[in-house]
Amino acid sequence: MPEISRRARLAPPSPIRRLMPMADQARQRGIHVHHLNIGQPDLPTPEPMRAALARYKDEVIAYGPSDGLPACRAALRRYYGDLGIPVTDPELIVTTAGSEAILFALAAGLNPGETVLIPEPLYANYLGFATVLGVEVRAIPCRVDEGYHLPADLERYVVPGTRALLFANPGNPTGTVYRREEIERLVALAKAHDLFLIADEVYREFVYDGTSRSLSLFEFPGLTDRAIVVDSLSKRYSLCGARIGAILSRNAELMAAVRRFAMARLSPPVIGQHVAAAALELGPGYFAEVRSAYRGRRDVTVRALRAIPGVACPEPEGAFYVMARLPVPDAEDFVRFLLESFSIDGETTMLAPGNGFYHTPGGGADEVRVAYVLEEEKLERALQIVTAGLAAYQEKLGLPAAATAVAGGAPPR
Amino acid sequence: MPEISRRARLAPPSPIRRLMPMADQARQRGIHVHHLNIGQPDLPTPEPMRAALARYKDEVIAYGPSDGLPACRAALRRYYGDLGIPVTDPELIVTTAGSEAILFALAAGLNPGETVLIPEPLYANYLGFATVLGVEVRAIPCRVDEGYHLPADLERYVVPGTRALLFANPGNPTGTVYRREEIERLVALAKAHDLFLIADEVYREFVYDGTSRSLSLFEFPGLTDRAIVVDSLSKRYSLCGARIGAILSRNAELMAAVRRFAMARLSPPVIGQHVAAAALELGPGYFAEVRSAYRGRRDVTVRALRAIPGVACPEPEGAFYVMARLPVPDAEDFVRFLLESFSIDGETTMLAPGNGFYHTPGGGADEVRVAYVLEEEKLERALQIVTAGLAAYQEKLGLPAAATAVAGGAPPR
Repeated sequence: MPEISRRARLAPPSPIRRLMPMADQARQRGIHVHHLNIGQPDLPTPEPMRAALARYKDEVIAYGPSDGLPACRAALRRYYGDLGIPVTDPELIVTTAGSEAILFALAAGLNPGETVLIPEPLYANYLGFATVLGVEVRAIPCRVDEGYHLPADLERYVVPGTRALLFANPGNPTGTVYRREEIERLVALAKAHDLFLIADEVYREFVYDGTSRSLSLFEFPGLTDRAIVVDSLSKRYSLCGARIGAILSRNAELMAAVRRFAMARLSPPVIGQHVAAAALELGPGYFAEVRSAYRGRRDVTVRALRAIPGVACPEPEGAFYVMARLPVPDAEDFVRFLLESFSIDGETTMLAPGNGFYHTPGGGADEVRVAYVLEEEKLERALQIVTAGLAAYQEKLGLPAAATAVAGGAPPR
Repeated sequence: MPEISRRARLAPPSPIRRLMPMADQARQRGIHVHHLNIGQPDLPTPEPMRAALARYKDEVIAYGPSDGLPACRAALRRYYGDLGIPVTDPELIVTTAGSEAILFALAAGLNPGETVLIPEPLYANYLGFATVLGVEVRAIPCRVDEGYHLPADLERYVVPGTRALLFANPGNPTGTVYRREEIERLVALAKAHDLFLIADEVYREFVYDGTSRSLSLFEFPGLTDRAIVVDSLSKRYSLCGARIGAILSRNAELMAAVRRFAMARLSPPVIGQHVAAAALELGPGYFAEVRSAYRGRRDVTVRALRAIPGVACPEPEGAFYVMARLPVPDAEDFVRFLLESFSIDGETTMLAPGNGFYHTPGGGADEVRVAYVLEEEKLERALQIVTAGLAAYQEKLGLPAAATAVAGGAPPR
């Protein structure tokens, strides 16, 4: 019997998805599951996009160009142009969602055995792609009591063979939005050690500080050969199922290589690109509305979480996730408990165990990621279930119930 | 300036797509290009599938499960069941087309630096995926005068570190359909050297010997832990743009790993899966009609190619490609000539240079791959252009025009 590869053995299951079979079983028992585990927005895909889908009538659902349909490429370039980030044609390739953009960025920048630095907690799927590619991950630990902003000393994490630094801004799972000064420190580090900087900016418009977007890596000078931006339309337009994203860089040699990677998989999904091209038709107020909806949801979520005795979480500045520390030794066991053994009036809530968002062994054991992707009333209901479920879980385990709510941002112990 | 990775430098451009910019330029000069370079069928996507697309009205175009939508999975399992190849639920994962199935199969079976054997000429994109994954390719050369069937001595190609053998059956670019005895030899080799066998069966129904399909690797006994099947709906249903395929194996450990790879990219395209699920509604005569159309096209193509002085090609037994040997030293240069400098009545023809379908340096230099994916009349026209273009090219280069047509299958020199 042939052995599967080391990378196959080591590929981590997604903390967002690996417990889905338990949610399915709960549903089969007649339980309604509130999904706060996955970043699947409940906002409708914008009407012009659905109209574009209804208009699609090609007799042959045919391949498109490897770098994307012209109409989709044009819509993306216009989008960046409107942000004040002009992008020329060779600097952009349409990908099969942000996932493929991550795969291409890591493959273009790193050989097997080389190292990518990633601030931690980190988007779990980075670990999956790194494993497939044989790339080593080295975490830069960030602290909950600093709102998961970058630590002071970045230099100490650079090891021989470090070739890139990958970061999500706004952050998933943290919701942290990097300040200009932080990105400047990343830029300085990359220049000092000749690293690629890979910025995952798929939550760009999801910021709650009164501005309209987070800073893009492309706005920092002197990075022509070094900056790679990973993007996706999934969150921005509630378009997760279409699987449309992009990879951007001003490094011509790198983009030529990515174009060759893209040829090997022929083309990104064509129907989804027709839908994506309709982004051009969206009104100027679209993002402001989305942002306003999520700001309300964030506030509801943080308030509800902080009201639970023993629970701590920072107030996320962007994206639509919050990492919360729970007064339990094994948050994954609690997530399973909610799915298997707890419900209120036939409802329960699914969370993502925090451990999957850490590369450091043992990291995140008492944390969960909460995706605030439901409307406020449903969020409140889902978090009431978490509150009651936590009390029941603590009683079942004989854990001491925390006496009082913990101040936000402070570590609970 | 950071260096791009070795795999990025080495990733080969697709011979099917790398000359597309020249075709675009020809179009801009007002030239109509007949595309015989790419396996893009011109047959309409079946009506029930287009109807399923028209019915898709989800308000949120949301993620699906990582292993595929239940309806799409059910349609695929029913398809294999109807073939007499029962597939249980854990044995199948829906992929983003056959491309991703190839990526997953190679990643699951091989570590960076390990070797996969592939009969040559080979599907060019295997080289792209192997390069991304750091996997070494070792070609098993097959001869045009043997119709690209397997050579007698397979053992000699096994080297230390060989972990898998990957083959397309029916073959792309060769159209060769393996006989039972040939697959049995592959099976014996895999057992003797403890290899994975990866069978790319995306052209399964495209066979022209009076049967309804090629043999599947899953029909050979004793391969539970060893067999991996790569599949795609692209060709079977003229559905290339939907990007829906599958990976299948009865090796539970391997499929668990592939499921983890699949989680990292969240889900395959959802709209395309809704379309794919409508395969259930196709009438029983669907494949017979498709096969009949392509048999006619094959006959037209082979006849036209063999009528060109100095051109040799075997009669392909399946798929919709034929490798033809041309009386020129550099077939890629001839392909460029057709796009840049030749036309008849405002029309020209694009072919895929044969060199891209070889891993062996220098292989395929005088060959082209012809995809017979147009209706017969257009094929005839496209091949008339090739015939005249070849004469013009020979004259331009001062090459001796071949006096007579070469007998099919025999090497021209």
